[in-house]
Amino acid sequence: DFIHSQKYDPYTNSQEPNNVWDFFSLSPEATHQFTWLFGDRGIPANYRMMDGFGSHTFQWTDSAGEVFWVKYHFKTDQGIACLTSEEAAVIAGQDPEHHQHDLLKSIDSGEHPSWTLKMQIMPDEEASNYKNNPFDLTKIWSQRDYPLIEVGRLTLNENPANYFAHVEQSGFDPGNFVRGIGPSPDKMLQGRLFAYGDAHRYRLGINHTQLSVNAPSATSADNYGRDGQMALGDNGGPAANYEPNSRGGPEQTNQPLYSGGGVSGATGTYVTVAHSADDNFAQAGALWRLQDSEAQARLATNIGQSLAGVTIDGVVERSISYFAAADPEYGAAVRAAYQRALS
Amino acid sequence: DFIHSQKYDPYTNSQEPNNVWDFFSLSPEATHQFTWLFGDRGIPANYRMMDGFGSHTFQWTDSAGEVFWVKYHFKTDQGIACLTSEEAAVIAGQDPEHHQHDLLKSIDSGEHPSWTLKMQIMPDEEASNYKNNPFDLTKIWSQRDYPLIEVGRLTLNENPANYFAHVEQSGFDPGNFVRGIGPSPDKMLQGRLFAYGDAHRYRLGINHTQLSVNAPSATSADNYGRDGQMALGDNGGPAANYEPNSRGGPEQTNQPLYSGGGVSGATGTYVTVAHSADDNFAQAGALWRLQDSEAQARLATNIGQSLAGVTIDGVVERSISYFAAADPEYGAAVRAAYQRALS
Amino acid sequence: DFIHSQKYDPYTNSQEPNNVWDFFSLSPEATHQFTWLFGDRGIPANYRMMDGFGSHTFQWTDSAGEVFWVKYHFKTDQGIACLTSEEAAVIAGQDPEHHQHDLLKSIDSGEHPSWTLKMQIMPDEEASNYKNNPFDLTKIWSQRDYPLIEVGRLTLNENPANYFAHVEQSGFDPGNFVRGIGPSPDKMLQGRLFAYGDAHRYRLGINHTQLSVNAPSATSADNYGRDGQMALGDNGGPAANYEPNSRGGPEQTNQPLYSGGGVSGATGTYVTVAHSADDNFAQAGALWRLQDSEAQARLATNIGQSLAGVTIDGVVERSISYFAAADPEYGAAVRAAYQRALS
Amino acid sequence: DFIHSQKYDPYTNSQEPNNVWDFFSLSPEATHQFTWLFGDRGIPANYRMMDGFGSHTFQWTDSAGEVFWVKYHFKTDQGIACLTSEEAAVIAGQDPEHHQHDLLKSIDSGEHPSWTLKMQIMPDEEASNYKNNPFDLTKIWSQRDYPLIEVGRLTLNENPANYFAHVEQSGFDPGNFVRGIGPSPDKMLQGRLFAYGDAHRYRLGINHTQLSVNAPSATSADNYGRDGQMALGDNGGPAANYEPNSRGGPEQTNQPLYSGGGVSGATGTYVTVAHSADDNFAQAGALWRLQDSEAQARLATNIGQSLAGVTIDGVVERSISYFAAADPEYGAAVRAAYQRALS
Repeated sequence: DFIHSQKYDPYTNSQEPNNVWDFFSLSPEATHQFTWLFGDRGIPANYRMMDGFGSHTFQWTDSAGEVFWVKYHFKTDQGIACLTSEEAAVIAGQDPEHHQHDLLKSIDSGEHPSWTLKMQIMPDEEASNYKNNPFDLTKIWSQRDYPLIEVGRLTLNENPANYFAHVEQSGFDPGNFVRGIGPSPDKMLQGRLFAYGDAHRYRLGINHTQLSVNAPSATSADNYGRDGQMALGDNGGPAANYEPNSRGGPEQTNQPLYSGGGVSGATGTYVTVAHSADDNFAQAGALWRLQDSEAQARLATNIGQSLAGVTIDGVVERSISYFAAADPEYGAAVRAAYQRALS
Repeated sequence: DFIHSQKYDPYTNSQEPNNVWDFFSLSPEATHQFTWLFGDRGIPANYRMMDGFGSHTFQWTDSAGEVFWVKYHFKTDQGIACLTSEEAAVIAGQDPEHHQHDLLKSIDSGEHPSWTLKMQIMPDEEASNYKNNPFDLTKIWSQRDYPLIEVGRLTLNENPANYFAHVEQSGFDPGNFVRGIGPSPDKMLQGRLFAYGDAHRYRLGINHTQLSVNAPSATSADNYGRDGQMALGDNGGPAANYEPNSRGGPEQTNQPLYSGGGVSGATGTYVTVAHSADDNFAQAGALWRLQDSEAQARLATNIGQSLAGVTIDGVVERSISYFAAADPEYGAAVRAAYQRALS
Repeated sequence: DFIHSQKYDPYTNSQEPNNVWDFFSLSPEATHQFTWLFGDRGIPANYRMMDGFGSHTFQWTDSAGEVFWVKYHFKTDQGIACLTSEEAAVIAGQDPEHHQHDLLKSIDSGEHPSWTLKMQIMPDEEASNYKNNPFDLTKIWSQRDYPLIEVGRLTLNENPANYFAHVEQSGFDPGNFVRGIGPSPDKMLQGRLFAYGDAHRYRLGINHTQLSVNAPSATSADNYGRDGQMALGDNGGPAANYEPNSRGGPEQTNQPLYSGGGVSGATGTYVTVAHSADDNFAQAGALWRLQDSEAQARLATNIGQSLAGVTIDGVVERSISYFAAADPEYGAAVRAAYQRALS
Repeated sequence: DFIHSQKYDPYTNSQEPNNVWDFFSLSPEATHQFTWLFGDRGIPANYRMMDGFGSHTFQWTDSAGEVFWVKYHFKTDQGIACLTSEEAAVIAGQDPEHHQHDLLKSIDSGEHPSWTLKMQIMPDEEASNYKNNPFDLTKIWSQRDYPLIEVGRLTLNENPANYFAHVEQSGFDPGNFVRGIGPSPDKMLQGRLFAYGDAHRYRLGINHTQLSVNAPSATSADNYGRDGQMALGDNGGPAANYEPNSRGGPEQTNQPLYSGGGVSGATGTYVTVAHSADDNFAQAGALWRLQDSEAQARLATNIGQSLAGVTIDGVVERSISYFAAADPEYGAAVRAAYQRALS
């Protein structure tokens, strides 16, 4: 009952079915993502045998100033392997850090895992009229419209010498770009441009960017950042700490790192402008139909078992309605699995 | 000599003439502000006998949705009183906290200082064609164009019971607004919307907004902020910590706190669009001419004595050229005072 | 091989056999504790069905000033239940927070778990001549010599309303005592008197003792602690912040919270003075012989399987020698289990 | 009146006469120190022209293991120069950082200030029967009993390149010793052995000892300290982070850094054992009589003017009684100066 679920916040964690499905049942745009997460690829066998995705859309500008929007796909060269829920529970019980240990041992033994980087590239002028909003994190771009283009390879060939120094203290920040690469108007990415750096300043400290694992290694950062807890090195020595100055300190180039986008109208908070084919369920339905009947059965069972833990009124019905909107057969399979799980 | 001034950063503090004037000599837009600071009003006799200014332009929106730009002037009801540099040095030597002690004793003795709040109010439609950029912090609005309108009074009627709790721990943040009041496009203010909160999070901690001196007192803050160092109270108790939810948690109103502004073009970094009468020296010249000859002499002497400490090539000449651009007589007076100070 | 084990610190965590057994093989005093940990009671079925121990020896002084040394035993009223390694791995895979969830649901459903507090009490004058050092954390007191005396009951009858506020932010500190209870000369406890508070100041902040979960609730703390990050309340208001003062501030009582102990000789670092029956293996041997043959088999197997992961020269032999010193049969059983695990 | 002084803590700072003299009037052992502070040497003309003192007694142990107690005196090679209160107020008003600037310019110009280190050295066996408690910070050792022995020279020959990195971030800790030098039982020093490090951990962060300004430069620190905010370097790389280990990590030498002292009795809180000539006023009286009549007049006037600000009942009388106990003439001079200041 609702009263019960309200009572303790230890229940309100991200594993708790009431939380997961209450949120989902009010976020229909997540239907595609949930279809992925509860399906076979939702539990990779290890870090080596899974793909990676940039998820967000990013901006590339070429040397002629032409703007493109891109998606990154890191395709594993080891082949995909996944676990069932049951297999995963066994492994997690035996070694809760199984994925780290697998990666560690593989690299240590000389089997260096690699991923082929492939990209989808959309010219700027096609963005506003593409059938989906290309900056909507909850949707993928059709590979028929924008095929994967191979551009490189990522190989993991060395383990860190010290876990704390080189893993715990690392702070990845999507607000860091190299010239020619920039963010897209994806509103989730825009939030992350601030949130990651803020989190690192809280977690690692104001000068975490000076730690060797986070500092630029091929170049130097020329700025007027000074002082603050654990300022390393000589902190600028006797150089001027104000700008403008006539003492040879770094100057603003006034050259943008990435290309500006056209805007018009009044600033404010808006619901995203709809593209012709924007809808919350089509891609989820396609992903359902892409799978063979056994995979579909596992997917429906995973969802049904999780839904069986929900006690908030209306949440199960709203959730199943989204799977049904994706594909009536999908909705029916989830409903049947839910009822099996309850009985 | 230049080499010398480069050598030690103890010299590169904000009191050091080379720093002050090097910066100024590359920032002609500061000529008006420097004319104020080195003049009689630059050293108030105490906190009670000085005016206060919002400095930045803010936005007010009335109940009909009409937008205005406003400037705040807090005019002292105690009358203006100032100190010469010589008087100030004597007082600072005897009691480095003279201004705090004066305010403390005045309030304690029942002489509660007050300020009359007067405002300049500019209809939105006049902003783009006003002779000056009304969002340029370095310029004032003519009181002939926008006369002061009296709107209220600020009275200081109680001293804090504990200095650390109620003064040191207070964190004023220009990013906090009540409905109907918002920021202007002043680029300095836009930076401060972020910088003040960031500074407080570093100095006071992530949950400083929960300290009684900073927390809202007439209302409650309904949000999903949770956890972090020194989370006070019950930290939300068993309420949902995700949104959207169907458990009665706070919901976004999607109603803006302030009014959006029209924008068009490409996002990027721009030099501010010029208004017809924008210039760096006119208001400084007017301020010079407003003063009687004795005040002018004190102003020129103060500047000349400070300039006499400058050792970086070119800085003195560039600086004097700005005062001369404000008024040839002003430039000449400063030059003469500088030469007197050197000899 | 040794080289391999040196290579990556991700391997040097507390789960890693080389670390665990290298440390053990140089710490023979841990033989009794390892016998417990690898035996049946090393994995409780849940938090309710296990005993709790104060572990350290504490000091009680009665109203007449007489000193006693005490050990706390919290004996579960739910009966003991344990898991095999295999059972534990299954449960951990299905719910990594099984123990918290079990406790949460039990309390929520009205089944409030309780523990009977029993104590061993040793008069001060018996301490110096007791057969074991009574302040040696690695040894227990014979219950024949000091039988358990029932003194009370601990019942968990309410779940915390907010996990972060009431669990994460709690900071238990063995340096906090009520009058009449104090520490013993156990050198591990002496270290913890400092280490826990230091850890909390780092983790929770300098003023964490003011958080409601940590602040005294039945009394107030009268001291001159002031200021620091996130000082709550009025921070002492206008009271004096120095001592001595004649303004009614708190005064030192100069009455000790606990009773002093006799010392003589020169200060310095010493190896603990031996008692007649101090040895590292007797109690471990007794614990081995206390168990039936099936429990012995499980114990030996658990140890043997863990030892099989060790690659540092000498560690396995040194470790097995300690089990053999406890009981030759114990040593033989571990050796056999180790060889089975290798093959 | 008392009510008034209680009202605001801005008044309860260390400059405020009520605080200063309330504390003093309850701390007669400070009479000698106050006589120094309010006398001519209480305001040095600059940092170069003043002596420095270790203040606390420290322990030296020679290569034969013999123990000595020592006092450090750094005698300026520039000669002593002082300011009157009136002169100091003028300088502080003109340049609040006068002393830093003086030192900076002197070193920069090649006039490197130096101090001759002289020591008083007391054989351990004389400590217990010396006329004063030699570990009482409020008393000096007679130079007739323990004459100054010249041992070396301290020269300041380089300014720091960056004020924040090399001055603000430095953390001096009396708990850091080199072999052969150790603390004395001075209870104020014993408190500082903890307090300084605690303050630095709060102010600079847990890893401030790794900053170059604080790290050992002639040797390396071999320990098991790892992790924590802003851990620099490789944080130990793959080395073992536990001890004992058989992997070549650092081992305890069990050799003390300094010599232990004999103790006997029960641990607890005690008033310091009296030595034959311990008293709170004799050295203050001697310091008074050492000065010529003009210096005495300045001293009495400085005290009288400060006492005139006191409003708490009894404080002035208690304070004057201490000066009178030091020398009746001293007490009379202070009383007269106080009455002059009041009128």
